[in-house]
Amino acid sequence: MDYVYGPGRNHLFVPGPVNIPEPVLRAMNRNNEDYRSPAVPALTKTLLEDVKKIFKTTTGTPFIIPTTGTGAWESALTNTLSPGDRTVSFLIGQFSLLWIDQQQRLNFNVDVVESEWGQGANLDILADKLAADSAHTIKAVCIVHNETATGVTNNLVKVRQILDNYRHPALLLVDGVSSICALDFRMDEWGVDVALTGSQKALSLPTGMGIVCASPKALEASKTAKSVRVFFDWNDYLKFYKLGTYWPYTPSIQLLYGLRAALDLIFEEGLDNVIARHSRLGKATRLAVEAWGLKNCTQKEEWYSDTVTAVVVPPYIDSSEIVRRAWKRYNLSLGLGLNKVAGKVFRIGHLGNLNELQLLGCLAGVEMLLKDVGYPVKLGSGVGAACAYLQNNIPLIPSRI
Amino acid sequence: MDYVYGPGRNHLFVPGPVNIPEPVLRAMNRNNEDYRSPAVPALTKTLLEDVKKIFKTTTGTPFIIPTTGTGAWESALTNTLSPGDRTVSFLIGQFSLLWIDQQQRLNFNVDVVESEWGQGANLDILADKLAADSAHTIKAVCIVHNETATGVTNNLVKVRQILDNYRHPALLLVDGVSSICALDFRMDEWGVDVALTGSQKALSLPTGMGIVCASPKALEASKTAKSVRVFFDWNDYLKFYKLGTYWPYTPSIQLLYGLRAALDLIFEEGLDNVIARHSRLGKATRLAVEAWGLKNCTQKEEWYSDTVTAVVVPPYIDSSEIVRRAWKRYNLSLGLGLNKVAGKVFRIGHLGNLNELQLLGCLAGVEMLLKDVGYPVKLGSGVGAACAYLQNNIPLIPSRI
Amino acid sequence: MDYVYGPGRNHLFVPGPVNIPEPVLRAMNRNNEDYRSPAVPALTKTLLEDVKKIFKTTTGTPFIIPTTGTGAWESALTNTLSPGDRTVSFLIGQFSLLWIDQQQRLNFNVDVVESEWGQGANLDILADKLAADSAHTIKAVCIVHNETATGVTNNLVKVRQILDNYRHPALLLVDGVSSICALDFRMDEWGVDVALTGSQKALSLPTGMGIVCASPKALEASKTAKSVRVFFDWNDYLKFYKLGTYWPYTPSIQLLYGLRAALDLIFEEGLDNVIARHSRLGKATRLAVEAWGLKNCTQKEEWYSDTVTAVVVPPYIDSSEIVRRAWKRYNLSLGLGLNKVAGKVFRIGHLGNLNELQLLGCLAGVEMLLKDVGYPVKLGSGVGAACAYLQNNIPLIPSRI
Amino acid sequence: MDYVYGPGRNHLFVPGPVNIPEPVLRAMNRNNEDYRSPAVPALTKTLLEDVKKIFKTTTGTPFIIPTTGTGAWESALTNTLSPGDRTVSFLIGQFSLLWIDQQQRLNFNVDVVESEWGQGANLDILADKLAADSAHTIKAVCIVHNETATGVTNNLVKVRQILDNYRHPALLLVDGVSSICALDFRMDEWGVDVALTGSQKALSLPTGMGIVCASPKALEASKTAKSVRVFFDWNDYLKFYKLGTYWPYTPSIQLLYGLRAALDLIFEEGLDNVIARHSRLGKATRLAVEAWGLKNCTQKEEWYSDTVTAVVVPPYIDSSEIVRRAWKRYNLSLGLGLNKVAGKVFRIGHLGNLNELQLLGCLAGVEMLLKDVGYPVKLGSGVGAACAYLQNNIPLIPSRI
Repeated sequence: MDYVYGPGRNHLFVPGPVNIPEPVLRAMNRNNEDYRSPAVPALTKTLLEDVKKIFKTTTGTPFIIPTTGTGAWESALTNTLSPGDRTVSFLIGQFSLLWIDQQQRLNFNVDVVESEWGQGANLDILADKLAADSAHTIKAVCIVHNETATGVTNNLVKVRQILDNYRHPALLLVDGVSSICALDFRMDEWGVDVALTGSQKALSLPTGMGIVCASPKALEASKTAKSVRVFFDWNDYLKFYKLGTYWPYTPSIQLLYGLRAALDLIFEEGLDNVIARHSRLGKATRLAVEAWGLKNCTQKEEWYSDTVTAVVVPPYIDSSEIVRRAWKRYNLSLGLGLNKVAGKVFRIGHLGNLNELQLLGCLAGVEMLLKDVGYPVKLGSGVGAACAYLQNNIPLIPSRI
Repeated sequence: MDYVYGPGRNHLFVPGPVNIPEPVLRAMNRNNEDYRSPAVPALTKTLLEDVKKIFKTTTGTPFIIPTTGTGAWESALTNTLSPGDRTVSFLIGQFSLLWIDQQQRLNFNVDVVESEWGQGANLDILADKLAADSAHTIKAVCIVHNETATGVTNNLVKVRQILDNYRHPALLLVDGVSSICALDFRMDEWGVDVALTGSQKALSLPTGMGIVCASPKALEASKTAKSVRVFFDWNDYLKFYKLGTYWPYTPSIQLLYGLRAALDLIFEEGLDNVIARHSRLGKATRLAVEAWGLKNCTQKEEWYSDTVTAVVVPPYIDSSEIVRRAWKRYNLSLGLGLNKVAGKVFRIGHLGNLNELQLLGCLAGVEMLLKDVGYPVKLGSGVGAACAYLQNNIPLIPSRI
Repeated sequence: MDYVYGPGRNHLFVPGPVNIPEPVLRAMNRNNEDYRSPAVPALTKTLLEDVKKIFKTTTGTPFIIPTTGTGAWESALTNTLSPGDRTVSFLIGQFSLLWIDQQQRLNFNVDVVESEWGQGANLDILADKLAADSAHTIKAVCIVHNETATGVTNNLVKVRQILDNYRHPALLLVDGVSSICALDFRMDEWGVDVALTGSQKALSLPTGMGIVCASPKALEASKTAKSVRVFFDWNDYLKFYKLGTYWPYTPSIQLLYGLRAALDLIFEEGLDNVIARHSRLGKATRLAVEAWGLKNCTQKEEWYSDTVTAVVVPPYIDSSEIVRRAWKRYNLSLGLGLNKVAGKVFRIGHLGNLNELQLLGCLAGVEMLLKDVGYPVKLGSGVGAACAYLQNNIPLIPSRI
Repeated sequence: MDYVYGPGRNHLFVPGPVNIPEPVLRAMNRNNEDYRSPAVPALTKTLLEDVKKIFKTTTGTPFIIPTTGTGAWESALTNTLSPGDRTVSFLIGQFSLLWIDQQQRLNFNVDVVESEWGQGANLDILADKLAADSAHTIKAVCIVHNETATGVTNNLVKVRQILDNYRHPALLLVDGVSSICALDFRMDEWGVDVALTGSQKALSLPTGMGIVCASPKALEASKTAKSVRVFFDWNDYLKFYKLGTYWPYTPSIQLLYGLRAALDLIFEEGLDNVIARHSRLGKATRLAVEAWGLKNCTQKEEWYSDTVTAVVVPPYIDSSEIVRRAWKRYNLSLGLGLNKVAGKVFRIGHLGNLNELQLLGCLAGVEMLLKDVGYPVKLGSGVGAACAYLQNNIPLIPSRI
């Protein structure tokens, strides 16, 4: 079953699924249970309460759905919108592309605002569209907080400001798959109506839970939204919430206990410390890339992502070869360039339960890989640059002081 | 986290989720992996090949979807039918009720054929409807193979015969959630067009995979089916099957390895031996019920289920009290009576990775419970009756001879 | 690796190693750690403190030794005695025999007091010997609290009384391998000088820790004891206890965390409740044996063991065949008859993390086995007798009330 | 329980216990079993056969003892020697010191041959002693293959040559605790009489098994050796080997399955490839140390160890502070300087299931640590030097080509 076994630990630096910490693996190492016993609802209750904290919401209603990020998207859209509804959506990379594709297949009328891959969402166009939409035909603005394909983080504060400027009532739907629990995200403060993430990203769990959080306004919208939905229908959840049994269908017992453990770890570290750690990891990675003389796919600093860095390779190099070789020679898993940037970038995911020395091992590996494929890197240069920053900025581990 | 801890092992006898065997727990005890590396597609390939064996199909196409049984239902329906399509569906218990509800919410035009709870699908009415439908307005016959709420197994061979008798082209969609891998099921031989199950049932895995298998005719239907679908769309899977990468979105690495281990165990035991074991467990349970002087909710022998037995309690007893007490006093998890039979029946699930001595422990527990709630059972009577049958019928464990 | 796989759970009823509860398995599912970091000593400190509670001692000094029960015996003897020292030791079964053999090989001068197998230690002879030993040539009385081979529990209160009656200063060394954490045991109150157990018995852990507890008098004796010892030398431990690093050599990280979890479970249940549970399990087993018309190897009620029952089979049956068949046909592990009682008894271990329904499953299995080998048992009779007692005596699970 | 939790993975670079690979953790994640069933002896048989391969012996007899390295030492000595026997033993660091201490406490007459810490065994003195010993009063030469405290590997080939030169019949007893399965070791070819290792070292298991291998000559010696022993007596094992039940007392079921998995991984990689990997890791570490301008505690290249490197810090730095800080700030576990070299060296363990990128992460961490404590290291220098070597020498992972 592990016929591709390589000695030592796999260095997992794709931007999801990410490393699962041992306490979470332990929590999930268990037999099934009757989810109708008093134990599972009691556990679920704590999860629903605590999961709101990672969205920084007190007014939102969370749904923990046995699905993936793609399903979470579908849940966000079908519960709040009706076929034919007009949405504004930003195409800035592969995942925003796929979400737009889903919006179109679900029969929404999507205004696609495209940017060059490596740039953030074009918010000027959003402003123009909202300004022109005094009839409020735009029902929702859909935006990916962090585009995983290019390592671009969009500015949600600005999106909210623009909506407010034009007093536009459109819902704000945010894909936080590669941001929530890793980047600064404030559902209530930023007026996000639906935010969502997946368990295998910054929460550092296995795949299998799409976590969707709905604002009161989104819940209100769900009462009239006419998109056909059953499995993804929030209403079934709300019905069982009221009964105190919580589950319209069978949840994964293992993931529930895993989520409990994952949240406990995050709260023990402190959510803001988790975000600060990601900031260190992102900055260190970018310093290494710079030291190697390579370009970040992200074109401006304002969009730099602290969860994933897409590194542009020189034209004479095929970035896929780097990814292949990483796995074959160094037991290192890097992210491929996808779609438009296939062959042109490789990606370093630096999110989830990860520390600085793990990242430095990866960066050392990338240096050897660059050499392998003929790029004239000075070995140790990227690691040295990253270390110079990190050595000044890593805090002591609080529980060990 | 385990604040409801009781000494010893939990006796899990709900009809799902069921006991996970240790080799499967072991296989799932692992970190995440890059699902785009060569390893995961290679593993997936073997799974797709082998999973067909549990459906007894060589011509079907399986989809392993990160969802539950409810999602698997939705996948079966939306990929093969269009809004407004007429279906025939049998209401015989809580799970067939929920599936019918889904069909209606997905905007199909459902002919509901209702039976008393405790009876099987009324196939005479099916025959009448098909006979009357020379225009072939019926697009699908939807049937739950084993109704988990009442312990009723429907006769699929007869359903196929009736369809064939009238040369009716309707698709045959089968919910095999509590049957496949436990009861005799033959997708190809019985001309089933879509069959589905969930990982937490007879496969003895955690919840999280809806496994759907489509006949060539169902695949053909999916090309014109107009139901809106994205997450559940087979087409996205088929696209990635062709690419050899298999996954349109992130699968659960742990469940994939778990499924590999689960299939290995089933094949090692032999699927027919697995089915024979369930037959023994079902028969032994029914003999115990009889010895206790209680009634099986299932009204005729032809519908007896080998995966779950719903036991009718005397009117002066509340069956929910038995279930509550089982958990509180004996660390035994029994199934509640649902909906119409709430308070009237309790259910013993006897499916999945389970052996005879486990069942006998449960039956002994039920005897004490019956006494607890004032039913005059002769202690040892049910266990004795079950043992008398089992002692004559349990085979030696092949690997230990 | 599991080429002897049988479906369902193995029913483990040997008197050790016993079932490990899931929370303990989870706690042990971890990578190694540096045992010289601050974390491991901090953990060890709590273990040494808490392990005393299971011995019911406040004045004793515990040693958690990476060894088995045999090593724990050697530790008890070599740290307190010198070659040539006279000991009194009771031969009542296979394990007392092995301990006596060890005492002799370690060059002690052993007064062996033999009883028929199935009887307890002959304390009259002890009294005689002490009475005659005004010169105090007897340095230690060595006694197995619970002889695992015959299911005989010795009366330690009486042993202490006899020693006190004669004001004899001999050390009292007690093998509590199959008693401590399951039977009533009071180190301080009963004036036990060295008590010991193994992790795989009532503590319900894997094999690998011999836990030895020494009274102040035993520690004092260790200062002059001349038996050669290095690995088992308490002195090396005491040296590291003073340093606060605790370990003279590398401990098993996994077992330390496992012990923490095991103790937590025992304290959550309550040690006295644990003992009461064993009393119920023992009583229920004996009632079943009686109902089957079979004899308990233990000849008098005063010696009945609540952790293991040795069942005598009729002369025309080979008890080994029962054990072999249990494993081959029912996935049930029973204890063989050892040495003098080989072929004549089989043993049911009912200790550790075990509940009543598990035991009842085993008893049902034994009934079928008896039938298998031609003994005319009435099926259900033993289970019924056990249930009649248990149904009156099982308390509610406190955490679930 | 994990109150010293730090985010991300612990970087475990003490020279034991070392990282356990996931497949081994998985194999050990299991309930106890009856070790007297047919399954455990069958498993044990394969282990005893296969464990010989890691010693490179076909004529040796292995003993898998539930103990630590210290116990394995005691087993080697007490089974082959009698009190008063003369041994030659080399004091070159903390672990050879402890072994000598044990030899003395076991009442052997030890010729201690001391070297400066950082040097290998003084084999000239051995030659002199053997030359002078025409009466063959020297019964055994005891040597630590790899002194873990100083990172010194002794030359066993030369030891054998010297013994042969003088046709001296002394037994050759070798502590291979931090060498076997990582360094070149050839029991038969080098005429080693007893070799031993511990499970938590290069085998990458938890602590708990001392594995001792005896040559025919050693077994012969055991027949007359008069050292008192019971728990460590080979004879008890041999008796049970003949019976085919293998175990004189209860083994750890989990460690047996773990050992099976560990051996499978080693054989899959190829023992010689494992050794070559350690050679790369050792060389890379030394290149980094050199690049940092620091000294290896090991004074000559001929003694360089490929499993552990002891790094000498400048006099103005306390190496313990580096180790403390590594754990507190970087979640990195380094080895302390012990005894004579306390405060003067810190140690990097690079043995067991470890790959190059893991090591490079550690080396980057050490660079930051050096800076932390005021040593003027050029960040990236050590990692760069190591990479330059590794990038030329790491092979492709065979299973992934």
